[in-house]
Amino acid sequence: MSTPIRPSIGPSGIEQLLRRDQPAASVRHSGRIDRWLVAHLQRSIAPAAVRLELWDGSSPYDDSATPLGSLVIHDRRTLIGLALHPDLQFGESYMAGRLEVRGPLEPVVEALTRLSQPHATWRDRLTPTLPNTLSASRRNVHSHYDLGNDFYQLWLDRHLVYTCAYYSNEQMSLDEAQLAKLDLVCRKLRLRRGERVLETGCGWGALALHMARHYGVHVRAFNLSPEQLSFARERAARERLTDRVEFIDEDYRNVTGQYDAFVSVGMLEHVGLRHLQTAAAVLRRTIRPDGGRGLLHFIGRDVPIPLNAWVRRRIFPGAYTPTIAEVATHTLAPAGMSIIDIENLRLHYARTLAHWSERFALVKDRVRQAYGDEFQRAWELYLAGSQAAFATGWMQLFQILFVPRGSVPPSWTRSDPHEVPRVT
Amino acid sequence: MSTPIRPSIGPSGIEQLLRRDQPAASVRHSGRIDRWLVAHLQRSIAPAAVRLELWDGSSPYDDSATPLGSLVIHDRRTLIGLALHPDLQFGESYMAGRLEVRGPLEPVVEALTRLSQPHATWRDRLTPTLPNTLSASRRNVHSHYDLGNDFYQLWLDRHLVYTCAYYSNEQMSLDEAQLAKLDLVCRKLRLRRGERVLETGCGWGALALHMARHYGVHVRAFNLSPEQLSFARERAARERLTDRVEFIDEDYRNVTGQYDAFVSVGMLEHVGLRHLQTAAAVLRRTIRPDGGRGLLHFIGRDVPIPLNAWVRRRIFPGAYTPTIAEVATHTLAPAGMSIIDIENLRLHYARTLAHWSERFALVKDRVRQAYGDEFQRAWELYLAGSQAAFATGWMQLFQILFVPRGSVPPSWTRSDPHEVPRVT
Repeated sequence: MSTPIRPSIGPSGIEQLLRRDQPAASVRHSGRIDRWLVAHLQRSIAPAAVRLELWDGSSPYDDSATPLGSLVIHDRRTLIGLALHPDLQFGESYMAGRLEVRGPLEPVVEALTRLSQPHATWRDRLTPTLPNTLSASRRNVHSHYDLGNDFYQLWLDRHLVYTCAYYSNEQMSLDEAQLAKLDLVCRKLRLRRGERVLETGCGWGALALHMARHYGVHVRAFNLSPEQLSFARERAARERLTDRVEFIDEDYRNVTGQYDAFVSVGMLEHVGLRHLQTAAAVLRRTIRPDGGRGLLHFIGRDVPIPLNAWVRRRIFPGAYTPTIAEVATHTLAPAGMSIIDIENLRLHYARTLAHWSERFALVKDRVRQAYGDEFQRAWELYLAGSQAAFATGWMQLFQILFVPRGSVPPSWTRSDPHEVPRVT
Repeated sequence: MSTPIRPSIGPSGIEQLLRRDQPAASVRHSGRIDRWLVAHLQRSIAPAAVRLELWDGSSPYDDSATPLGSLVIHDRRTLIGLALHPDLQFGESYMAGRLEVRGPLEPVVEALTRLSQPHATWRDRLTPTLPNTLSASRRNVHSHYDLGNDFYQLWLDRHLVYTCAYYSNEQMSLDEAQLAKLDLVCRKLRLRRGERVLETGCGWGALALHMARHYGVHVRAFNLSPEQLSFARERAARERLTDRVEFIDEDYRNVTGQYDAFVSVGMLEHVGLRHLQTAAAVLRRTIRPDGGRGLLHFIGRDVPIPLNAWVRRRIFPGAYTPTIAEVATHTLAPAGMSIIDIENLRLHYARTLAHWSERFALVKDRVRQAYGDEFQRAWELYLAGSQAAFATGWMQLFQILFVPRGSVPPSWTRSDPHEVPRVT
């Protein structure tokens, strides 16, 4: 298993290449094979209007159309990698500084993403999926969410919400939209004072604290990240909510008790395809059969395909973004749940990511100094690539509201949660 | 293939049984085997508090609990049929007058429905599904929807809408709720003046005419029922909407052209599982790739099971009520569509059916005179059974809104269609 990017990884030697403004005399000229290969690649991405350029400045791009930007390929190894396994090698090369994007990163990535419809490649089909055992899950969560609260505080909103925001109007700031999302979730669940709520994958605790403060519910919130948990507990103590919110260091599979409402925002992606059925058992035993309800908020797909190979290797090991059909078939149906309401917030996630990218760009130098060039570039690309995936429809963001089969849904119509926000 | 109930079927000889107030002297007494079998049946339905009674008045019911009602079994053949194949024989016997319900029909049927969770029986699994060829579809539609406009006018709302209504408030009448449903569909689709709309399975034309009048769109509406089409055309002429609405006698598979919006209310159930993929091809070629959108409104399930055997035989030959996962996998994904919004209106259909049953009861004698006892009882049971299925969660009513993958959804948030109805 490959190692995800950690802050400890410093800039590599190849970095030096990036610092030259023009090719040094010592750089090898491209050969016929290189030029044939890059011309082939250029044709294959023709509709994207992205210019390819080799290390010696040569380019097969037909300049009749103004390009959105250029991809500068720094060596033959990178060129061959891009031809053989673009899904993985684009990220690997960008991160290592062997592939440079001249021009705006996000539009270039989006144009390249738009080239094809989402589908599984033969490579995807051959990729073994890793079982998310209890220890593997803890390791996977640690690798991403324990990068340091300081790191996420540099560019997330003030409540540290690391999931899709909800822009109930298009002029909202990121802070406002994250708050609107927390409240939308509460209203969809129709939380009532005094109810017991189970949250799995609670991040830095923003939703749990919002539910407790504004809806008067008692929350047990589970997480595997010690960094996030300690932050959440401090915040609960500061806000005098410790009597109503309990933050628990435990895997969601070991949750006990029965609750009026179950909520999970941004965790299902980490459960993995193989364990969707395990999640069913948790829902079945934790949601009160009569009057209970649940909400799953997760990154999903229209068609079943694995996560991009580079993201899977470097950013989210063990993750899988399921389709509605997969969640319905493997989780909700065996849990005895009935789907009440589904909303796709894809474009809200594209906007959230645009806000994150803007804020990340402002702290670019601080990230580079603290964590190294490679780390900074990996995150820059991950944010831009995710924005492109949501903007183009490669990825979806689903909120699914459900109740135990045959029980009465929490509301007669859906209209009210969209009319009377408790907090704006 | 069995014949669905047609108005031409008159009362059978067995009917006479019903007209006796008490068993005639000539009725055979029940034997030990009969009493053993009915006791077994009584135990198997124990939680339902429904009393079983044999033709000679004997009953194994433990009178410590007041029963909701009684099922009177008129002969041994019926008793054995109920034991062997209750899903089919309950309906067959009730329709033929060999099984009588004393007490309120709907609560008794609902209590019996609640006994088990929806799942496929071995019999369901062995049942061959009939292919809905073009000619079979026409025949199936004819058998149900050409019963005569007069028949449906007796008990449907004034616009003749034979699908789930939407009670935007719980005090609405059936007429109001059907109008609210038509408008909800238009608002979910965000119809704009001058757009082209395709409707497949348009019934008596209420939605097509509503869209044309209140949203100024041009509608091509398809149907296979000559009776419904002639009614719809007359109405269009009377309401001076013939320049904007075209009613076409054609199978949905033969639809041509490209449209801004696709809508189908209550047709997908008749498409059948095997043809969900065929529907995909229609969606793919008829919905404008950029800015187009579609809405499917259909009776569905949480888990994949066939329609009740009796309903399949007598009421809706060729029908299948699919799960969200089946529609997503076999229709929407291959059509290149992305799900934007799903709403489950199960309890609205239970209420719609309660309203239909109330109105049907008022015209019971006229139905019996015109179409015979057997027909009247079949429809009475079909309405009560459907209400029970929605009330208990055996059946769901889904509205799915979708757009071509990667295209911009018709609205930024869903809030407005629930705030500003065009017509109330």
